[in-house]
Amino acid sequence: MPVGTQGTVKAMLPSELVEMGASIILGNTYHLMIRPGLEIVKQAGGLHRFMGWDGPILTDSGGYQVFSLARLRQITPAGVAFQSHVDGSPLFLGPREAMAAQADLGSDIAMVFDECPPYPCDREYACRSLDLTLEWAACCRESGLAGARQLIFGIVQGSVYPDLRERCARELVAIGFDGYAVGGVSVGEPFPEMLQQVAATVPHLPRDQPRYVMGVGTPPQLLEMIAHGVDMFDCVLPTRVARNGTVFTARGTYAIKNARYRDDYGPLEEDCHCPACQRFSRAYVRHLVWANEIVGLRLVTIHNLYRYLDLMRQARAAIAAGVFEEFRNEFVSHYEEKNRDAESH
Amino acid sequence: MPVGTQGTVKAMLPSELVEMGASIILGNTYHLMIRPGLEIVKQAGGLHRFMGWDGPILTDSGGYQVFSLARLRQITPAGVAFQSHVDGSPLFLGPREAMAAQADLGSDIAMVFDECPPYPCDREYACRSLDLTLEWAACCRESGLAGARQLIFGIVQGSVYPDLRERCARELVAIGFDGYAVGGVSVGEPFPEMLQQVAATVPHLPRDQPRYVMGVGTPPQLLEMIAHGVDMFDCVLPTRVARNGTVFTARGTYAIKNARYRDDYGPLEEDCHCPACQRFSRAYVRHLVWANEIVGLRLVTIHNLYRYLDLMRQARAAIAAGVFEEFRNEFVSHYEEKNRDAESH
Repeated sequence: MPVGTQGTVKAMLPSELVEMGASIILGNTYHLMIRPGLEIVKQAGGLHRFMGWDGPILTDSGGYQVFSLARLRQITPAGVAFQSHVDGSPLFLGPREAMAAQADLGSDIAMVFDECPPYPCDREYACRSLDLTLEWAACCRESGLAGARQLIFGIVQGSVYPDLRERCARELVAIGFDGYAVGGVSVGEPFPEMLQQVAATVPHLPRDQPRYVMGVGTPPQLLEMIAHGVDMFDCVLPTRVARNGTVFTARGTYAIKNARYRDDYGPLEEDCHCPACQRFSRAYVRHLVWANEIVGLRLVTIHNLYRYLDLMRQARAAIAAGVFEEFRNEFVSHYEEKNRDAESH
Repeated sequence: MPVGTQGTVKAMLPSELVEMGASIILGNTYHLMIRPGLEIVKQAGGLHRFMGWDGPILTDSGGYQVFSLARLRQITPAGVAFQSHVDGSPLFLGPREAMAAQADLGSDIAMVFDECPPYPCDREYACRSLDLTLEWAACCRESGLAGARQLIFGIVQGSVYPDLRERCARELVAIGFDGYAVGGVSVGEPFPEMLQQVAATVPHLPRDQPRYVMGVGTPPQLLEMIAHGVDMFDCVLPTRVARNGTVFTARGTYAIKNARYRDDYGPLEEDCHCPACQRFSRAYVRHLVWANEIVGLRLVTIHNLYRYLDLMRQARAAIAAGVFEEFRNEFVSHYEEKNRDAESH
């Protein structure tokens, strides 16, 4: 899922996302709540109409941003009081508020409101946090049923403790959701650690329902998690790094600002079928990025998103053909990962 | 002509310009010379191929920017020595260099290298400057003939002195160019003053060749100059003001950031057929502009450029139908001009 934080996938019109085959995008409840405000989106007829996107939208619950962005948090069993990171105004989000907010946004898939514990996190805190997360999940399920039309995904927390992950997964499945996310990853831990948590969680989630890892990752990381049984991802990487000129390719990333591309008239990536590579050269994109021209970051964004979506298309085809492992080994053997952890999230 | 200063019409892909009916764009020799450098564009196969624009391109000679942007100018009969406004590196542009530069860019229409006198400007300076401009024009014509493929437009200077304007026009016509521009306007003078210079110049230019006023203006100003016999314009206004959320309409401009549009779900302009108005609301665009989202300025840019191009389409149709004066009076009577002079250029 391309990420549309503030009601737009950065630099991209919905029609461009459709053209490159994006089938679902993510919206951030916290950001939309702060600006333009839920009432504005609701009055527009929901987020689809507000932003002109006809496909499915998954919204997060705001939980992650409350814990990563907001100021002066105070956690109570009812939810979290916090201040807007934009203007300091006092706000409150709990399970009921988060579900009501996502009902206002009218997303197709709503996420439960959870507490995302920090990394590292001692076992005692992780246990208490998990109790709260499970209590909130039940409350979200209940609020959600009243609204009816949205699917609701549970979120498995449990920090780095496999037994807590398992317990959380089992209890969420007992409550019963339409899909399940692995939350509390990509919060600063090294990738092997993240993968352990994914591996500790996924086996306890139903095979016939979507499994979603939130907020990751690099192309090899995604393939590794797919190998573990994960179906869905959202990631700001392809759009975020595009804005400083980092280009994803089958061989890894490179910086288009590099002097070596000054007179390189080839496309951003050989054999890429994205709209940017069809028409524009590295020399041109490099010029635009150096000159701070919006078209420069538009072209890199188009290319990077296309590469991510195309990777997922290829992975699905490989799974359907029964050759996923070969596909993954082949891909990873050509991909040179730089700053593996630094790049994630 | 939409303005593509640095090898891109800001925020717009060539395909989007084609869709909205742009038939020619302007490129700036000075800016491209400074970044990415003429050699890079030339090696790409010229500006059309470099930026992916298949339609005609008119390039200016760099003269205007040398006098408005560059540092430490030293004017000699051979041209102007100056420093890059980006990195201070020493550069030189004279008539031969400007024509060679435009040959490298491979534009369809090249402009002669002229001296653009400041406003105000005493008569003595204007006279001396005019001599230089005419000498350089002859030199450009000569250099241009060697290159052959480009059309070349002369530029009428003469500051605010009608007799100098007339003399310049006559002498340029005697040299013989493919079209003629009124230069040295929109340099800080009030609009009525500008219009006087246009009126003093145009009658001395051939009726059967394009007449071009450089670097203007607001919609009513363009219509007024069309009434004086002007055929071509370039203007950064529609793209530049879009970036702070100023929207052009048939009734004048407005600031989309204004609180009144917070929950206004109508289009940027009623009855506008531009791609932005087909799909997106004022409330949405306002949100995007406040949130510094690129899509916000893309949408306003699309709308503004469409309005400008559409105004020219309407003017052409009115001229062809013999009802231009009625069309202009009707348009101007509905258009409320704010900061008329401040907005121009």
